Amino acid sequence: MNRIMLDENNGMILVTATEMQERCFTILCNEGFSVERALQCATVFTNNSVDGISTHGMNRFPRFVEYIQKGYINIHASPLLQHKFGGIEQWDGNLGPGILNAIHATETVTQLATQHGIGCVALRNTNHWMRGGTYGWQAAKAGYVFIGWTNTIGNMPAWGAMDARLGNNPLVIALPYQDEAIVLDMAMSQYSFGSMELAEMKNEKLSVHGGFDAEGKLTNDPAAILATLRPLPVGYWKGAGLALLLDLLATILSGGLATYDISSREVEYGLSQVFVAIDISKLSDHSAIANVIEGILKDYHQSIVTDGSTKIMYPGERVLQTRKNNLANGIPVMKKVWDEILQL
Amino acid sequence: MNRIMLDENNGMILVTATEMQERCFTILCNEGFSVERALQCATVFTNNSVDGISTHGMNRFPRFVEYIQKGYINIHASPLLQHKFGGIEQWDGNLGPGILNAIHATETVTQLATQHGIGCVALRNTNHWMRGGTYGWQAAKAGYVFIGWTNTIGNMPAWGAMDARLGNNPLVIALPYQDEAIVLDMAMSQYSFGSMELAEMKNEKLSVHGGFDAEGKLTNDPAAILATLRPLPVGYWKGAGLALLLDLLATILSGGLATYDISSREVEYGLSQVFVAIDISKLSDHSAIANVIEGILKDYHQSIVTDGSTKIMYPGERVLQTRKNNLANGIPVMKKVWDEILQL
Repeated sequence: MNRIMLDENNGMILVTATEMQERCFTILCNEGFSVERALQCATVFTNNSVDGISTHGMNRFPRFVEYIQKGYINIHASPLLQHKFGGIEQWDGNLGPGILNAIHATETVTQLATQHGIGCVALRNTNHWMRGGTYGWQAAKAGYVFIGWTNTIGNMPAWGAMDARLGNNPLVIALPYQDEAIVLDMAMSQYSFGSMELAEMKNEKLSVHGGFDAEGKLTNDPAAILATLRPLPVGYWKGAGLALLLDLLATILSGGLATYDISSREVEYGLSQVFVAIDISKLSDHSAIANVIEGILKDYHQSIVTDGSTKIMYPGERVLQTRKNNLANGIPVMKKVWDEILQL
Repeated sequence: MNRIMLDENNGMILVTATEMQERCFTILCNEGFSVERALQCATVFTNNSVDGISTHGMNRFPRFVEYIQKGYINIHASPLLQHKFGGIEQWDGNLGPGILNAIHATETVTQLATQHGIGCVALRNTNHWMRGGTYGWQAAKAGYVFIGWTNTIGNMPAWGAMDARLGNNPLVIALPYQDEAIVLDMAMSQYSFGSMELAEMKNEKLSVHGGFDAEGKLTNDPAAILATLRPLPVGYWKGAGLALLLDLLATILSGGLATYDISSREVEYGLSQVFVAIDISKLSDHSAIANVIEGILKDYHQSIVTDGSTKIMYPGERVLQTRKNNLANGIPVMKKVWDEILQL
């Protein structure tokens, strides 16, 4: 292969977005997806890598295919409305592809918000939505404030605990800004397992404590944390508490499975998710909102940086730069991941 | 005085809830409050101390009176509806007492939720709501899921920054459980200034890093952090990002002031707040929800504790124990605080 080898040590190559999307699309069509659904999924996986979130882009794609082949994901299933009242709807995801279910839920909740000002869609029996930010961008670019979260399999201990009974339950908050969006996408663990595995592979330490070692001490050694499976909740007891509350709400609002139910399964499937949207065009003085946001960000950007820091960025700001760069120059992918995708 | 001196070193005494409430009530009546409004405020300040949140109970009461006397809080003002659409309402708090405005907003948003399934009240020009958990308990005990937050004056630097341009913007998430509630009440700084001042006074270190020292190093020395005014955001860059998003949403949804606007004032007043409620009685199978919550908490409580940890508790669980204990035995108050209140 004649690809540029970006980083000899880590075996990174550059792949264009078009190649990526076409390859994923073809694989999903071969798996039996309809053309439209294959294209939607391939686009989201590609965009996640374009935006620099390769852990939920190309790095994750092989597992998505594996879960289809093993029957955890029903590629033909669509979500079905179970119950509605006013601005709230409860849907069953029927174990369809998490990406398609979440796109549908986001579309639905924005329609509810247009009608009622604010809407909530709770979705049960769905699958991993990959990068939560995807739905934040989707809603915000359409003109809505978005708050959404998912539960996960147990992968993080409660504060003071050894065993991973909490999910790291990513939370997404987004709002429209200029033609783009401000999108916060944060899991309740300080680092994802994907990023710790990447640091271990590169033989790097984490920038701050990411979990506990075998002696129960906080450490920034990713290998030690991957050995104990004790990642650190964001803000210690605070992130652990928030993770519990997000699981409780996802479960009761959707009528679906809680983290502990999911943890009793052989792999992570059948998740519960919540999507809330607010239509900002229904607020008073909504035409002034863009200026208000600009004022806040202008002040934020005036922060005095510490030694060693560069510009202070808002959530989503770096994504825009990464996106632009990757679309222009190609997307860095681990060669072994791309080789695996080429074999699918 | 014949009070029990609880702790000679720190000068803690025990005061009953009745004494506390009566004293605060009398002071507020003397300040010109109507009987009903004085009673509401006195009750909330007392309950905050009863629940163990003295930083927003008795310790804070003298500053509340000071802000009334200086004219930052208009004791006669009530919130006024500015705009509504479906389940959303925007209110102006008219710089009334933050507690009364927040109680009103919580009542209003639960009514909206009853009508629309989900509701949102955004409140501008209000004042410090003291303990955010108050409104989580209020909504949850009435049968609603509650998500609410406030912005604050700038008191926390962005991640990588020196100067405190972010508020620590407390977030509250609550849901009904048995006859009580599960209530998460978390500021976006790892420790409140109140708790760091308390630790400094007791000559204690913080249990984990709470901010930066003069050399820009993370420290658990409260005095060092109080000197730099660089508290640590929860989860480093993650809590800083969440704080920014909460300020952006509070500002655009309410049409009120952002943290940077508030920071330009001589003291913290004129805040923006958001109250979201969901009526769980409008969900399908809502009668099963209590059992679902019980199942999740049962699993959570089975966590294997680390050496030195005691029982794993859910957010709000310790509050119930503290409340029971304080109502039975009296509420610990710093003698110098109680003496100050007796002088008001």
